[in-house]
Amino acid sequence: MNSTHLINVDTIIEARWLCPVNPQDIVLENQSVVIQAGKITDICATELARTKYFSNEVVQLNHQVLIPGLINLHTHAAMSLMRGLADDLPLMPWLQQHIWPAEQKLVSPSFVRDGTLLACAEMLSGGITCFNDMYFYPESAAAAVNQAGMRANLGLVVIEFPSAYANDADDYLQKGFAAHDSWRNNPLITSSIAPHAPYTVSNKTFESVVTYAEQLGLSVHTHLHETLDEISQSEATYGVRPMQRFNDLGLLGPNLIATHCVHLLKHEIDLLAEHGCYVAHCPTSNLKLASGIAPVAQLLAQGVTVGLGTDGAASNNRLDLFAEMRLSALLAKGSTGDAAALPAHQVLAMATIHAAQALGLDEKIGSIEIGKFADLTAVNLSDFNVNPCYDPISHLIYVCGREHVTHTWVAGELRYSLGAFANIEPNELKEIMSTWQPKLRQYKR
Amino acid sequence: MNSTHLINVDTIIEARWLCPVNPQDIVLENQSVVIQAGKITDICATELARTKYFSNEVVQLNHQVLIPGLINLHTHAAMSLMRGLADDLPLMPWLQQHIWPAEQKLVSPSFVRDGTLLACAEMLSGGITCFNDMYFYPESAAAAVNQAGMRANLGLVVIEFPSAYANDADDYLQKGFAAHDSWRNNPLITSSIAPHAPYTVSNKTFESVVTYAEQLGLSVHTHLHETLDEISQSEATYGVRPMQRFNDLGLLGPNLIATHCVHLLKHEIDLLAEHGCYVAHCPTSNLKLASGIAPVAQLLAQGVTVGLGTDGAASNNRLDLFAEMRLSALLAKGSTGDAAALPAHQVLAMATIHAAQALGLDEKIGSIEIGKFADLTAVNLSDFNVNPCYDPISHLIYVCGREHVTHTWVAGELRYSLGAFANIEPNELKEIMSTWQPKLRQYKR
Repeated sequence: MNSTHLINVDTIIEARWLCPVNPQDIVLENQSVVIQAGKITDICATELARTKYFSNEVVQLNHQVLIPGLINLHTHAAMSLMRGLADDLPLMPWLQQHIWPAEQKLVSPSFVRDGTLLACAEMLSGGITCFNDMYFYPESAAAAVNQAGMRANLGLVVIEFPSAYANDADDYLQKGFAAHDSWRNNPLITSSIAPHAPYTVSNKTFESVVTYAEQLGLSVHTHLHETLDEISQSEATYGVRPMQRFNDLGLLGPNLIATHCVHLLKHEIDLLAEHGCYVAHCPTSNLKLASGIAPVAQLLAQGVTVGLGTDGAASNNRLDLFAEMRLSALLAKGSTGDAAALPAHQVLAMATIHAAQALGLDEKIGSIEIGKFADLTAVNLSDFNVNPCYDPISHLIYVCGREHVTHTWVAGELRYSLGAFANIEPNELKEIMSTWQPKLRQYKR
Repeated sequence: MNSTHLINVDTIIEARWLCPVNPQDIVLENQSVVIQAGKITDICATELARTKYFSNEVVQLNHQVLIPGLINLHTHAAMSLMRGLADDLPLMPWLQQHIWPAEQKLVSPSFVRDGTLLACAEMLSGGITCFNDMYFYPESAAAAVNQAGMRANLGLVVIEFPSAYANDADDYLQKGFAAHDSWRNNPLITSSIAPHAPYTVSNKTFESVVTYAEQLGLSVHTHLHETLDEISQSEATYGVRPMQRFNDLGLLGPNLIATHCVHLLKHEIDLLAEHGCYVAHCPTSNLKLASGIAPVAQLLAQGVTVGLGTDGAASNNRLDLFAEMRLSALLAKGSTGDAAALPAHQVLAMATIHAAQALGLDEKIGSIEIGKFADLTAVNLSDFNVNPCYDPISHLIYVCGREHVTHTWVAGELRYSLGAFANIEPNELKEIMSTWQPKLRQYKR
């Protein structure tokens, strides 16, 4: 066929299987995704696409299922440098004797930039295209995100105690807003205000956060009801549980991403639902730190939208949404006694479109639809370890691991394929690991 | 140096790190494992080994940690052909509408041989060198095990209802003993008598099992206290819980491998401990079928020896002990509220030496010690996804996946390395998948 009759486009991806996620339960076969200027301009049968489009960049995925790029709804990316620094310890010795001393001594712009780049590499190679972060020096995280070519929502962290990064809550906020201004025109980076947690942020600061978030149109990203200690401490200090305190302070609303929510009373689930709050569920971290098991099936039953997060690599210790998808599906079943709880397609939606909704990005990403950005992940289903296959969506959750990811695109750009990154050199990662491991190992368990 | 002064041996493995597992908490660096006639004849510093030994087969593991081959203490290997056939369903519809009809129609010697070979490939590539199986046609499973060159303890399955394999309990037993005789001189295969479960085996048959096990010196492998339904059904039928029934029948003892043990009262944990019974913990399967979470920390506290199993690929859906190790460590913490519960080195012991004890094979395998068989697994720690590394044992449990396994040896023979098997051709696996998928898919959800 003469290519002059064809429409020339940037990229055509010919996928053996395609899970658009919207609608949730559908798997299409032999479909082409057509990409122009970073966006999906057509999705149609490959046979038809070949009669309509031409591209110098045609990627044939003969053995893969193409899914929306995964969205990590809660992480502290730079903490990848502290991966496995102090495992098998209760929360307080872990924080007080290992994590906090290491952070106080070593966290710096270069720590955050290097740690975030290592995290970006890990996430891209595992099919994650976007992450919701909370850490010091967000402008250094942004530098790593830019290099990797990922999408991120970076938290403007606020905490009462001083650090190398900022002196007090106001200083954190002002530094955060300066960072926010610096990436205002960056199409891949957005911001949340990120007050750390109920036990590290005062009422006065939370009130400022509410005001600023409204003025700037930003979401609020925080930890909430992670542990029973947090709740009893709040009762002792404020006379109420953190959820009630948040309600009193006007924090509950559709711009709130509440991370963890492990311990919830029935009326607290109702509160989250009534206010349209989003929950970031981090099952591995919640188990590893012995916080407990979040009541995800109950949250979903009440209409709360839930996404999935890895948390930081110091408490996980993988930034791996395939692991979180599998674990959340399994835990929901085991903890409710209902093997039909949280079926595979719903888990995949949590890791994609539901997380996009939480970030206010669901018009742009989270599903494979015409008009959205081409944030896409290809997962190989030909390996003998994932066969036979009767249902690709089920296999994505219960069988595949991140090791089956072969390609990751962000806004139509191929950022990772078959072991190699577009913008990250293997030697750069090696140097990061060999620079920081010797500095951090004195804090190890 | 002149090699004539050196002792010539079959294989030398030079490992960057080595976890012998006995003692549990030790990591050695730059050690060589010397292998002769399938057994470990020396373990010493690589520098020293180079002055003492010579081999035509020297394997340098510059980036790997060498661990004992993992032992899968409970599986139904042939069910790999039904991987993901019917997910997100409660136990009874899952069994009655999908698994049992498929088995009734299709299970045959070739089904078992093909499914077991696929399972062997999956397990070897994930660092598993030995598995404890229970399924129909064990002699067909043995054929696959022989080809793969793995070690296995094959269950002589007994169940009251007829199948294509056998007509009644006696027939199952007689066919089992014939199979047992057929591999009597095989150094890699041993047997258990495997009465399926309390709800599928009569008192009379269990009594025969006890007698035969004693006469033949065989262990007994069964499902026990997997679900609450099983327990209430037993109370209705026998007036007692299955554990009490087992006690009354004389089944409790150091030759019993009780799989699952999800629901246990305090005195039942004591019974298991007093009788020296072994427990095969299958955390993924227990969650996925909504059975619950086994009280592993409590079992260990009472001195019960616990190993790890994947169960079959129809209820997991991976035959992946790295996933089970990680999940068991996480669940023990999350379910007890103690982040120090089930630390990494203890989990690694469960997947190796403790499982070997359960199988009565701990004089031969389960740790890297002089005189034991060289059943060994190498795990790559250089990947950016597993760095930095501060503690290799912690990384094995919380960071690494089976995708980091590079080499697997069974009795000194390299059976898997870097994507290739010694005795299994990729085309053979492809043919198995393409033969059975079309036959089974009519039973899919």
